[in-house]
Amino acid sequence: MTIPAEAESSVDVLVIGAGPSGLMAAHGLARAGVNVRIVDQRPAKVAAGQADGIQPRTIEVLQSYGLAERLLREGNQMHMAAFYNPSPNGGIVRTGRTADITAPSARYPFEVTLHQGAIEAIFLDSMAAMGVHVERPVVPTSIELSADKAELKDPHSHPVKVVLKCLAPTEGQPETEVVNAKYVIGADGAHSWVRKSFGISMDGEQTNYIWGVVDIVPDSNFPDVRNRCAIHSTNGSCMIIPREGDKIRLYIQLTDTDVLNPETGRVDKNKMGPEKLMEVAKKTFYPYTMHADTFDWWTIYIIGQRVASKFSVNERVFIAGDACHTHSPKAGQGMNASMNDTHNLIWKLSHVLRGWADMSLLKTYEFERRKYAQDLIDFDRKFSALFSGKPRTSAGGDGVSHEEFLQAFQTFGAFTSGIGIHYAPSPVVHTQHQAHARALVVGQRMRPHVFVRAADARPFEVQDLCPADTRFKVLVFAGDTSDAAQRARVQALADAVEQGFYRRFGGAEPGKVFDVLAISSAPKDKVDYTDLPPVFRTHWSKVLLDDTDMFARVGGGGYDAYGIDKTKGAVVVVRPDGYVGIVAPFESIQDVDDYFAGFMKA
Amino acid sequence: MTIPAEAESSVDVLVIGAGPSGLMAAHGLARAGVNVRIVDQRPAKVAAGQADGIQPRTIEVLQSYGLAERLLREGNQMHMAAFYNPSPNGGIVRTGRTADITAPSARYPFEVTLHQGAIEAIFLDSMAAMGVHVERPVVPTSIELSADKAELKDPHSHPVKVVLKCLAPTEGQPETEVVNAKYVIGADGAHSWVRKSFGISMDGEQTNYIWGVVDIVPDSNFPDVRNRCAIHSTNGSCMIIPREGDKIRLYIQLTDTDVLNPETGRVDKNKMGPEKLMEVAKKTFYPYTMHADTFDWWTIYIIGQRVASKFSVNERVFIAGDACHTHSPKAGQGMNASMNDTHNLIWKLSHVLRGWADMSLLKTYEFERRKYAQDLIDFDRKFSALFSGKPRTSAGGDGVSHEEFLQAFQTFGAFTSGIGIHYAPSPVVHTQHQAHARALVVGQRMRPHVFVRAADARPFEVQDLCPADTRFKVLVFAGDTSDAAQRARVQALADAVEQGFYRRFGGAEPGKVFDVLAISSAPKDKVDYTDLPPVFRTHWSKVLLDDTDMFARVGGGGYDAYGIDKTKGAVVVVRPDGYVGIVAPFESIQDVDDYFAGFMKA
Repeated sequence: MTIPAEAESSVDVLVIGAGPSGLMAAHGLARAGVNVRIVDQRPAKVAAGQADGIQPRTIEVLQSYGLAERLLREGNQMHMAAFYNPSPNGGIVRTGRTADITAPSARYPFEVTLHQGAIEAIFLDSMAAMGVHVERPVVPTSIELSADKAELKDPHSHPVKVVLKCLAPTEGQPETEVVNAKYVIGADGAHSWVRKSFGISMDGEQTNYIWGVVDIVPDSNFPDVRNRCAIHSTNGSCMIIPREGDKIRLYIQLTDTDVLNPETGRVDKNKMGPEKLMEVAKKTFYPYTMHADTFDWWTIYIIGQRVASKFSVNERVFIAGDACHTHSPKAGQGMNASMNDTHNLIWKLSHVLRGWADMSLLKTYEFERRKYAQDLIDFDRKFSALFSGKPRTSAGGDGVSHEEFLQAFQTFGAFTSGIGIHYAPSPVVHTQHQAHARALVVGQRMRPHVFVRAADARPFEVQDLCPADTRFKVLVFAGDTSDAAQRARVQALADAVEQGFYRRFGGAEPGKVFDVLAISSAPKDKVDYTDLPPVFRTHWSKVLLDDTDMFARVGGGGYDAYGIDKTKGAVVVVRPDGYVGIVAPFESIQDVDDYFAGFMKA
Repeated sequence: MTIPAEAESSVDVLVIGAGPSGLMAAHGLARAGVNVRIVDQRPAKVAAGQADGIQPRTIEVLQSYGLAERLLREGNQMHMAAFYNPSPNGGIVRTGRTADITAPSARYPFEVTLHQGAIEAIFLDSMAAMGVHVERPVVPTSIELSADKAELKDPHSHPVKVVLKCLAPTEGQPETEVVNAKYVIGADGAHSWVRKSFGISMDGEQTNYIWGVVDIVPDSNFPDVRNRCAIHSTNGSCMIIPREGDKIRLYIQLTDTDVLNPETGRVDKNKMGPEKLMEVAKKTFYPYTMHADTFDWWTIYIIGQRVASKFSVNERVFIAGDACHTHSPKAGQGMNASMNDTHNLIWKLSHVLRGWADMSLLKTYEFERRKYAQDLIDFDRKFSALFSGKPRTSAGGDGVSHEEFLQAFQTFGAFTSGIGIHYAPSPVVHTQHQAHARALVVGQRMRPHVFVRAADARPFEVQDLCPADTRFKVLVFAGDTSDAAQRARVQALADAVEQGFYRRFGGAEPGKVFDVLAISSAPKDKVDYTDLPPVFRTHWSKVLLDDTDMFARVGGGGYDAYGIDKTKGAVVVVRPDGYVGIVAPFESIQDVDDYFAGFMKA
């Protein structure tokens, strides 16, 4: 076999690391038609274990890429949480049950659990259908970013040089390759080589909390074996996360003597094993039985709570996922935060690469995601302390009471569900007209609601009309279109939109940049889709109603739910990632033009 | 190429004809693990045109086979119907809109439209995954049924001999083959060769109504182009059926002079074409525009309304679908009736072939489906007359008024939706205890309702827990299991079930014959799945609650909706095809034993 000399190539985006964060990036960029490659050092995808909880918001995001159907088919759903505390009679007793999440507006009011390999497979299969595959096993051996300011400012330049080494080259394939990239995304995990290469520090520290994790099919008489359980016993704490099929995952609190090597003071995995973990669990579950013959996967870890000091180098190299934040896995945050990092970046890179947006748009990635990561660590610090703390027994004392824990669980609910993510004002978040859609919070994700299509009375979830297709969704809440005066206002708005941002930033094919939907507040027997001006109905499917379906099962009340005036209406711009970018009354449509002018090129 | 001598083989079931009826049969039998073959004379599946409307009940049936998801993804949904009548100013004017179906209990409150080829593909792909393919182009050249009574009564015999001729044999494949079958299903269309071979007559007659059909992508300003429209104009009647994508189907009433050859008195397709059909349509739609440049498919037909005099020959040869009933396509009945014919037959054949049920069970196929077909023709006769009749104009007269038509449309709604199908008492329909579940009509399909799983508070549609897997579903409405006295009654019932039909007819593996589900009326905070006796929870997933999900979005009120006493409960047996077979109070569990004893072997 002859190994050719080193090869050299160019790419728009190189993704390093094919975990959930890297796969989300490569999948979304490929779907947007971006020239992208993704490499990973592992010879094959993850088979079992590792992260496995998908939050309500992440399900919404996956749905926006058309990936949620399979997730929901394959995954387990976690709807209920149960709490156990020390019983006066010894052992544990149930002190309450509640919803697993605290996010009334969630479209999917539960979490999905599924092993990481199955989640990765959803991305891999969808990517394969687009002809994009993970190149593996491939390791980067060097990365260099040009220091030339002119080169960095030129959107057509390839200022990042990465040398890739293929660990198993096929016949005729060069062993090493120099890749010149416009952008690089380092999604290479907690020990990120990309992060280290640029000397980006991790701020924060390790905790003293040590946990063991084991995946089993339980043989048990415990009645909440299919619910998320937080169990505080005098023998330690434990959490159950039910999984696909009959599997469950146990998180088991360990003590120093369980796992630390007394000589080195470091975790010694040889001191532990799944059988020993189950011995600890059995004591915690008393008087219930908890037995397993076989173990799918297990590990032990010390919780670390750290955030990278920066998320990008000159907006040419980005880090995402575990590379920029590490925290406790118990609240199921890790994989969700990781996927949502790159979800935030995909549309921004796509718009810049197409020449539609200014490169300054990319600064909003770190702005939005680093603040979120910091909030995540703050949350994790509080939650881990509560969870790892000693329970208060019926004898009293200074332990954590059930009420304290439950309150924390619910307070943080919006956060742990991912629904509460709130991006602060920036070039892509303009809040000045918030009052015109009081309950559609600018900077938060577009709230789900069912509207009915005017042409055929078919109900649609509005989130499904705002897919992650890199287009801005312009939702024209047209008010009462059965009123002639309002129709005149709508016509004036249509003229302003068409002569304004729609053509100015949409160019010859504005339908590729903007998807305009009109939503009338009039009842369905008073609306024909043909009533709306042409720019608000580029297709018969684009006109909606705030009314129920024909059997009044779904729909209606959307204007009220969103806090929009039913007579006058309002314009709502939803970003390509599903977050509300700006709200404006008809009279302030110029502010929508200004919003787009802040980052888009005419 | 050498053609081998004639081959001979055996099969349990031979299906002749791979239209919707035959495909439903072959797919369902294959899924049940039955040894089945299916042949068709056409060299390839239908590409476009032909039947295309799927009723609400048929969607439920397809869902029970796991096939609805794709149908719903690919098909158009028809939620609304609009009515147009002559305007006093000339042309037509909208006189009203209503729901497309009249069936408040429908799980899917709409019809799906999709061309027949796409519907067939759903079956073909699912069959292919099970290794079953349509053999084509193959024609049967002779069929013989043994006259030997002993042979006919022997469940292991193969009394039907069919000679098949392959029209395009591959190398080494015999051109003709003698197939000895236990059972044959003739699903070979309106001109059924199987039916004619046994001299089965068609009762009924042709009408004088002549219609043209054309599939187009309209260029139109008609505001109801995406709704089912019934248009009565002084220029003739027309119906719109919106289809997948932007297509619509137009049904256009024709006059004798449009299409009859004056010499022969028969329809002459050469007198018509899609352009001429559109000319007729344009007049009907005035003052709206209705234009099309291209035509997907078109045809003309005279409505026939006939039912076969019998549906089987000695319960060894069955006919199904268009082979036993022909009627107007406008109410979208044909394909639905056809698929539901064989849906009714699949589980009966499966149980007899496995030796679980007596061959007499097969008599209920003709009993149940022929009555339905007759009702269908009666309905069609009335509806076609109304639809083809002259409209009443504002000047009055004796035509059909909008009110008359609308009333008929709604009266027949339950019928056209398929939801109202009601099988009369028979060995598989025992109505004596109807009062114990007043709104679960014995002989009708199991009504959809959402219940919540006790173990994890996950909501489930009960129809999804009653899939078409050939098992009888025994739904134990266990009453208030938080009450100790009721738990004692439930335990006594469990003992009776286990010592009774469950073991008697379930043998060593009763889980293959029966799927037992328990539904408590107690709220979720008062139930653990472990509260139920083992026979009512063979798996943690088998215990349900009549309560809402954690956010009170779905579920609850099921006992009331079904008319079951919340304290005492009742037992409901759902047949493998989703129809309620018997209802009984706990005290009459012996009647459930008797029900099964009526057709099953111990």
